[in-house]
Amino acid sequence: MTDLPPTERSRLRRVHERGRYDRATIDRILDAGLICHVGYVIDGLPYVTPTIYWREGDRVYWHGSSASRMLRRSEGEQVCLTVTHLDGLVLARSAFHHSANYRSVMLFGRAELVADKADKLARLQAFVEGLYPGRWKQLRPITGREIKATTVLSLPIAEGSAKLRAGPPIDDEADYALPVWAGVIPARTALGQPEPCPRAPADMMPLAPETTFPEG
Amino acid sequence: MTDLPPTERSRLRRVHERGRYDRATIDRILDAGLICHVGYVIDGLPYVTPTIYWREGDRVYWHGSSASRMLRRSEGEQVCLTVTHLDGLVLARSAFHHSANYRSVMLFGRAELVADKADKLARLQAFVEGLYPGRWKQLRPITGREIKATTVLSLPIAEGSAKLRAGPPIDDEADYALPVWAGVIPARTALGQPEPCPRAPADMMPLAPETTFPEG
Repeated sequence: MTDLPPTERSRLRRVHERGRYDRATIDRILDAGLICHVGYVIDGLPYVTPTIYWREGDRVYWHGSSASRMLRRSEGEQVCLTVTHLDGLVLARSAFHHSANYRSVMLFGRAELVADKADKLARLQAFVEGLYPGRWKQLRPITGREIKATTVLSLPIAEGSAKLRAGPPIDDEADYALPVWAGVIPARTALGQPEPCPRAPADMMPLAPETTFPEG
Repeated sequence: MTDLPPTERSRLRRVHERGRYDRATIDRILDAGLICHVGYVIDGLPYVTPTIYWREGDRVYWHGSSASRMLRRSEGEQVCLTVTHLDGLVLARSAFHHSANYRSVMLFGRAELVADKADKLARLQAFVEGLYPGRWKQLRPITGREIKATTVLSLPIAEGSAKLRAGPPIDDEADYALPVWAGVIPARTALGQPEPCPRAPADMMPLAPETTFPEG
């Protein structure tokens, strides 16, 4: 896979050693997440809305109610879609060199509507199957009204960058001798034990054993 | 504490039963997080940058290098600062009613520079002490050059809203009888065991026992 070409808005200016433009890194960060933050502009003012997203090939997708202001106002418009994983807090010997370990991706471009009904259905199915393999066929079939009430937007993975920091604190050389604890407190997002719906029958089948989930 | 007055941009239009405007709810969500996503506009285009934030009273703060494009271009400008906690994946009997449990806050307003040097120093100290109580006095004192190289921005908690979903799936009444697993897979961000810096002496003091950390 190739690199994304750095552009005026995607190129990292400072600490450019933390920047990555290769699709392997970008896709890995995208595929490890569930929630993105979509930025868009209404009447010149910025809005940032959290939403679940998924990747299929060279695109990311997000969805919601067709009545959603976020979806209606970002369709066809420029957006910035950001995914962030906090990996740790970095404690240095000086306040100044405290930091965080993280992996993030910022994507830029025009949000595109998935207008075709069959295409929209295929995307929703891929979304559910990506999270919960085997589940789509277990569910009550989606209705035409439900498909119509759902908007799916997408963004090509064409302009953007990843940024990441990992590893221990980097201190001023003279500070390493100071008698203060330094290191990393790791952070991790994890999924727990499924909690059945209170209205589920007691003999309800458990989740399919092959069901796997991404880690944040 | 009072409610924030709903405004044109902060009022929830749909599913307004998920909206909250009271400071107790907003502050609790803010105080449970470490990373926010700051949205800002450059030349009419949206940018969303993840960064660590902290709250003191009626303001949220974030900081970084004085050379940061995000900080230089959002100072004095309209921003949207969003904090999101993913609490779970909600599996319903139909694809349509799948959802997520979450707590989020969106704040709007003009980012203000903490210009006064003593004020900036006090804010940085509060930030470090908020995360790591007792640590500031253990650290090598911050230098004038380091204070100058750091920009701190703030936003009053004056315009914004919280949005949240909790609990089991809400299905169409007829679907509850379907033989498909339904429930919630909880998600949680947690901090792990501190990992000492490889360059720390073996007899280095551990983290102070009173050190506590927020949960995402």
